[in-house]
Amino acid sequence: MPPPEYFDADRAEVERALERQLPPGDAPPPIIHQAMRYSVFAGGKRIRPILCLEAARIFSAQPPGILEVACALEFIHTYSLIHDDLPALDNDDLRRGRPTCHKKFGEAMAILAGDALLTRAFQTLSNAAVEPERRVRIIQEVSAAAGTLDGMVGGQVADLEAEGKPIGAEMLAYIHRSKTAALIRVAAVAGALAGGAEYEDVERVRRFGEDIGLAFQVVDDILDVEESSATLGKTAGKDESQKKATYPALYGLDESRRTARELVERAHQELAPFAERSRRLLELADFLIQRRA
Amino acid sequence: MPPPEYFDADRAEVERALERQLPPGDAPPPIIHQAMRYSVFAGGKRIRPILCLEAARIFSAQPPGILEVACALEFIHTYSLIHDDLPALDNDDLRRGRPTCHKKFGEAMAILAGDALLTRAFQTLSNAAVEPERRVRIIQEVSAAAGTLDGMVGGQVADLEAEGKPIGAEMLAYIHRSKTAALIRVAAVAGALAGGAEYEDVERVRRFGEDIGLAFQVVDDILDVEESSATLGKTAGKDESQKKATYPALYGLDESRRTARELVERAHQELAPFAERSRRLLELADFLIQRRA
Repeated sequence: MPPPEYFDADRAEVERALERQLPPGDAPPPIIHQAMRYSVFAGGKRIRPILCLEAARIFSAQPPGILEVACALEFIHTYSLIHDDLPALDNDDLRRGRPTCHKKFGEAMAILAGDALLTRAFQTLSNAAVEPERRVRIIQEVSAAAGTLDGMVGGQVADLEAEGKPIGAEMLAYIHRSKTAALIRVAAVAGALAGGAEYEDVERVRRFGEDIGLAFQVVDDILDVEESSATLGKTAGKDESQKKATYPALYGLDESRRTARELVERAHQELAPFAERSRRLLELADFLIQRRA
Repeated sequence: MPPPEYFDADRAEVERALERQLPPGDAPPPIIHQAMRYSVFAGGKRIRPILCLEAARIFSAQPPGILEVACALEFIHTYSLIHDDLPALDNDDLRRGRPTCHKKFGEAMAILAGDALLTRAFQTLSNAAVEPERRVRIIQEVSAAAGTLDGMVGGQVADLEAEGKPIGAEMLAYIHRSKTAALIRVAAVAGALAGGAEYEDVERVRRFGEDIGLAFQVVDDILDVEESSATLGKTAGKDESQKKATYPALYGLDESRRTARELVERAHQELAPFAERSRRLLELADFLIQRRA
């Protein structure tokens, strides 16, 4: 299944916006801006920004400020990858087939580049051309999703704590919901908010994002079991060798695939009231998931 | 010279607010919240939050949301200390006489605790009970001051880059202005904004904060040369042994002391138009500086 026909255009739009929202590589001190750019322009698929864009388009063709919001999500995603790759955490040398940020720029600069991207994310949100009350709500949502209480950092911590231990279904669900799904969910929520969605519709998009985010993590786990190092550009089978908590480890591959399909189906039902207006977003969701499930 | 008579009361108010604004130590996953609390409640003097409070009080006795804003500044300050202390950066084992965060919780958790405090800072700002338009302006100011362009991370990077090299007056000024002064300046600016100050008064407080912030860094350099390890609770003379760029190294102790006094005098002049309303803030500035100059 090919990506939706608009996918490449969205992605190109996001790339141009990221270019605008980052300081140039020669702005002093140059080294930190080069490290930030190295990791942001490492060939990511821009899933979160595109989800954000398409969630917004349910409510408005091209709402002002939407690209800034989309970029902020990619900055947060990138910062989390840089810090996760550090020797004290996952200790990865490669990311998408290239040396990780600390391999290229040293550990000190990688720590600071992550810090800088997280800070830049909130700066970009605070400057987005979205009406102030909505802008504040977007910052509330994004900071919560990136934080420790059911957010990205909390999920990362729980994942570290669970390494090498037998964990139950409840803890696995917590890790998946917070480590990956929270940021994907908030990409959709922030898009809806920037697009002008009212309360009930924001909550609908939130449930859609939650389902898609969980499905995404489940298929990511499946992918890790199935694919080889060469295809992935990172060390595959790594989850298992590090005894990381995964869906297939707890439920098996077949049950994991079934869960992913059910989540996607539920996501479709959530957006049913938007009818034709949600077609693009649903195409994107299907593409992101089926490619991997 | 004793602290201003209100200093202990302000500090106690800040401590209570920090307690409220951080997740409890048993909130899951507990370890990250314990690490955040360990470093936030490590005996800091709360200079930035108190500056913020007192800058606000020029314009309003106790503006709504001011304590959230004050706490966010302390979270950012604490995150920067945790990350600066890491082995890849300053490699410090002690901070205020206690083991640093990574010595106590391990490197992975210290990296994540710093990330979490930075994220929490923006979450706290986004939830502050300040009118949305002003709240957004505060987030713009704080994120810029913490970032790479003339902000805290930029100063930290320039400082790392300068280690062991001869540096000129211009680079030293850049490092001082961004590494320490930016966050102190924005503490005053954010307080003024939360207090309801209008444009011209915000700019006046900004210039005051810039002068105080620079003076603070200059006397910090002086202190490092003069005091012993025992008094400071960290390894003194460390700047010199690491060949860090400092004021006394470039200008000598006497000239450094003179610069600090001039900056404080200029800071006083900036606030002259506020007359009696700025008395408390000026007392605080004098106390912070003379104690060390």
